[in-house]
Amino acid sequence: MKAEIITIGEELINGMTTNTNASYVGRRLSESGIEVRWMTTVGDHIPDIKDALQRAFERAAAIVLTGGLGPTHDDVTKKAVAQFFHSNLVFREDLYNRIVSYFDKRGIPIAEINREQAEVPEEAGVIENEIGTAVGLKFEKEKRTVFVLPGVPAEMKKMMEESVLPSLNQEGRSRVQRSLILHTAGIAESELYHRVKGFEDQFPEVKLAFLPKTTGVVMRLTIFGSSADYCEDRLNRSETYIRKRVDQYILGSGETTIEEVVAHLLLKNHLTLAVAESCTGGLVAHKLTNVPGSSGYFIQGLICYSNASKIRLLDVPEKILSIHGAVSGETAYAMAEAVRCKSGTDIGIATTGIAGPTGGTSKKPVGLVYVGYSDQNGVITEKHQFMKSRLWNKERSAVAVLDLVRRVILDYVKIGS
Amino acid sequence: MKAEIITIGEELINGMTTNTNASYVGRRLSESGIEVRWMTTVGDHIPDIKDALQRAFERAAAIVLTGGLGPTHDDVTKKAVAQFFHSNLVFREDLYNRIVSYFDKRGIPIAEINREQAEVPEEAGVIENEIGTAVGLKFEKEKRTVFVLPGVPAEMKKMMEESVLPSLNQEGRSRVQRSLILHTAGIAESELYHRVKGFEDQFPEVKLAFLPKTTGVVMRLTIFGSSADYCEDRLNRSETYIRKRVDQYILGSGETTIEEVVAHLLLKNHLTLAVAESCTGGLVAHKLTNVPGSSGYFIQGLICYSNASKIRLLDVPEKILSIHGAVSGETAYAMAEAVRCKSGTDIGIATTGIAGPTGGTSKKPVGLVYVGYSDQNGVITEKHQFMKSRLWNKERSAVAVLDLVRRVILDYVKIGS
Repeated sequence: MKAEIITIGEELINGMTTNTNASYVGRRLSESGIEVRWMTTVGDHIPDIKDALQRAFERAAAIVLTGGLGPTHDDVTKKAVAQFFHSNLVFREDLYNRIVSYFDKRGIPIAEINREQAEVPEEAGVIENEIGTAVGLKFEKEKRTVFVLPGVPAEMKKMMEESVLPSLNQEGRSRVQRSLILHTAGIAESELYHRVKGFEDQFPEVKLAFLPKTTGVVMRLTIFGSSADYCEDRLNRSETYIRKRVDQYILGSGETTIEEVVAHLLLKNHLTLAVAESCTGGLVAHKLTNVPGSSGYFIQGLICYSNASKIRLLDVPEKILSIHGAVSGETAYAMAEAVRCKSGTDIGIATTGIAGPTGGTSKKPVGLVYVGYSDQNGVITEKHQFMKSRLWNKERSAVAVLDLVRRVILDYVKIGS
Repeated sequence: MKAEIITIGEELINGMTTNTNASYVGRRLSESGIEVRWMTTVGDHIPDIKDALQRAFERAAAIVLTGGLGPTHDDVTKKAVAQFFHSNLVFREDLYNRIVSYFDKRGIPIAEINREQAEVPEEAGVIENEIGTAVGLKFEKEKRTVFVLPGVPAEMKKMMEESVLPSLNQEGRSRVQRSLILHTAGIAESELYHRVKGFEDQFPEVKLAFLPKTTGVVMRLTIFGSSADYCEDRLNRSETYIRKRVDQYILGSGETTIEEVVAHLLLKNHLTLAVAESCTGGLVAHKLTNVPGSSGYFIQGLICYSNASKIRLLDVPEKILSIHGAVSGETAYAMAEAVRCKSGTDIGIATTGIAGPTGGTSKKPVGLVYVGYSDQNGVITEKHQFMKSRLWNKERSAVAVLDLVRRVILDYVKIGS
């Protein structure tokens, strides 16, 4: 089944808003095996909307249209659609009552303008909206189905999942799409590519893309196929193939973050942790406390930006700072060890580096970062050389130290070796 | 002049990639006074591309097309455009030499496939690409101009700024667009709306939108007019009108963040600061250290998540914690005062609250947050009740405490009053 997506709104056309609705609808239709072929965006003009609809009607069997269903004067989609289908707008008492109770519940007086939202084209099926006032519409004519959805992303998504996709899924699919995201850290794109060489011969039907992100290289695997089972089976085999070769560099898959992975490992192993941060300036603690239930493993964090605060808060020996400098393996070592002892935790971690944009020297350039890990068995430090942007360096450093925790707990890295 | 934007690529159609190129081109054309009316997206199919071009040719004077100019087999845009204009592809020695030297400089061997990138339609003007291998193309026919640009955002943007916009600007503009973003904090959308009532009568040509964000309500002012001078003058007057009424709630404009505003105020007034964080878990320190040169004012941060760490790191009296609880104005008071004294800074700030999703009670629900500010004149605390999402609560709390610093330094809030 061929589909077309029509998105409506001046803010899309003039670029004030990025058209994430089109991507969302495109992705969900594709995942459901519906072949999206065209996307069209027009402003809030009745002739343009009708023109776009006409064109879509000529070439697509399923049409999803979003935007312009609000109560204000610039929302003309409903009028345009009614004109296109030569269908009168009729006032629906039941819909009006829903809107009244929607406002009642929120203690907001209902405006006269909202009355119009209870008017729908006579021939349209209604898609209920539990979280907003504009209902969605469904037209079926000449073997084509047209869905008209609000532009508010949450409302549009709910209708897509609960009405549009189930309704289209009953009809013929062409190709199902599945994808898998694997996050890596601590390995260069070229090395990653080298280690999974042969993948393309083994899985010619899976598209493997390498996407460099702040936190590390992301691998995206995409497959199109005639059934969900087939796609998922091939994706699972692909993942096994890749993990066999680079498992220790894979932080997590899908939406999982490194902090969630670390949190899970700490909780599972009943370990507590304290953080001493210099160059990351609170980002490591921030990430660790983003995970609900973080008080189960995160005890405290010390952000010691200046040398004086490293001495005051952590008793880092002045001699280490003067001989090796604040940005050194020795300082990272001392910080990790001290924060663990002072906090009474199982693990202490530390970061020290030059985030930039200034402060670098030829010997210690911007982006030079040392991270440290300490537990009762000893201390381990790692040196990294990142890029030249401050936020990038903070992010990469935070991921590096969290990944070090992950690798030690999973036994990929051994203290003292 | 009416314009149409055509974006090409399977990854756009199937939603794997959000179409930020279309927004960018739309925004830049609109800002230059060109009326964007249609956006069309198709996959990498020659018939679909030709069809989209045909349609655009019928209704727009300027057409900007991006994507599908790469060297691999799925990049078919150049072929489609050449067919559309009945123009032969010719090999250009000069372009090939550029590509060879591009690869040479990077020490990469040039592949046979790149040879095709030196082929261009006979009738096309060439838009040079200094940062990639695919050149852009420009066609002029029947009073229409068609620009064909690569899909790589950096390359596309460079060509837009250096070739497309200057070339279109010589021709007739219709309307110029300008916009202004004002960030607020500490004031509800409804109150904001109430305070700037009358704006629409005074500035009917300026569209004022209120957009609730994590950090507070953002006001977006947009104006279309026949000249840049007119638009900028009206925007300036609008800003003055709004600032007169709600200046103390405006954190900054455009891309400015609250941490940049606070950093500027601290540096200007030669003030140093230390942070004690409970519910924000490092986010306040992270924000403050995101600003380059933050070592000029940020001394240290203590993240004391548990009651034990509040006592250990900050000597918060056990009695306060047992009588008032960790989430209380009294604890925020003690934390702000203690972190200032222990750090020897001019200012101490603190956050304590229930970030959620669990840990709330009927008396102290999720989202309840106290922030504290301390300097030599005394201490001030503020109570906030935020929403139910953990990350949202952390973000709002961090902005609340930074905004408190801003308001005290600017004398909007007085200690002891």
